[in-house]
Amino acid sequence: MSSTKQGRLANKECSVARAMEIVGDRWSILILREAYYGVKRFDEFEMYVGIAPNILSARLKKLVTAGVMRRVPLPEHSGRYEYVLTDKGRDFFPAYLALKKWGDDWLADSEGPQVVFLDRAAGRPIEYPELKRADGKPLRLEDVEIVPGAGAVRFNRARFGGAPGGRNVAKAVGAVSRGKRK
Amino acid sequence: MSSTKQGRLANKECSVARAMEIVGDRWSILILREAYYGVKRFDEFEMYVGIAPNILSARLKKLVTAGVMRRVPLPEHSGRYEYVLTDKGRDFFPAYLALKKWGDDWLADSEGPQVVFLDRAAGRPIEYPELKRADGKPLRLEDVEIVPGAGAVRFNRARFGGAPGGRNVAKAVGAVSRGKRK
Repeated sequence: MSSTKQGRLANKECSVARAMEIVGDRWSILILREAYYGVKRFDEFEMYVGIAPNILSARLKKLVTAGVMRRVPLPEHSGRYEYVLTDKGRDFFPAYLALKKWGDDWLADSEGPQVVFLDRAAGRPIEYPELKRADGKPLRLEDVEIVPGAGAVRFNRARFGGAPGGRNVAKAVGAVSRGKRK
Repeated sequence: MSSTKQGRLANKECSVARAMEIVGDRWSILILREAYYGVKRFDEFEMYVGIAPNILSARLKKLVTAGVMRRVPLPEHSGRYEYVLTDKGRDFFPAYLALKKWGDDWLADSEGPQVVFLDRAAGRPIEYPELKRADGKPLRLEDVEIVPGAGAVRFNRARFGGAPGGRNVAKAVGAVSRGKRK
């Protein structure tokens, strides 16, 4: 098997690749945005996302299948539903906010962002938490080392080889079980 | 103009929609992943992403055009290049990590994640910062209120109510921005 093919197979295991399969199209992330804004009803998603009903329907179905949203019957309207976030969908909120922060910092027009998320009780914008090193300093890319995780497939074990800490290439397998115990 | 159309136009201003135009396809995010892993050369991207060279070439061009990566000539190989992250690309790292965290928490196989990011100096996994309220408690979706930002287009201003700061409670969608009045 060529290494390109091995790389492609290893991608199937990558949790970011898996995440992008769920949220990595523009419509899906905009539907999630609306859910975070409090929208629940089909016609409101349609209006605020500006999406054709057949596409919306397909995307909602995909999000429901992925367990990110669920469909709740509206008792007062037989045959109608609301779409609400599951725990899995609510748990994506920090990732949504991180995307928004990057977008606001690098892609927004000079006048500023479209919307601001306020900490309701404090009445001021929520703070985006910063990545920090163990010593409290800001974490830079240079401070990061990649090691195989507990579930790493052979391709990734060989690639990132070694114990947590990355010093001992020969002990890749040991590294995995040690990682798991943590 | 229909409100669906207005919604679609307002999306053009949404920084998350803009972010997804750059990173919101599977290949682009995997190329960024490899850049965070330290990959710089075309053939290494090709192998590790498991991507056809023509698609890789197009995606790298897109990332360079978006200012997320830049192409640096390799002096020792005339006509060959490395692809390195710009500040804009490096600044996406927290968003990448947030996506990875969600993926690891909800989508990884039960054995665990493929890779772990270590804090190199401390020799232990980096800590994913938690969203917190001003009073230090974990921030839940319920704690958040959406108000128009400084650059809000009219559609969003009308939707999220009045002046930046949200003192003028939204009339369009009651669900969204009630509660804050300080």
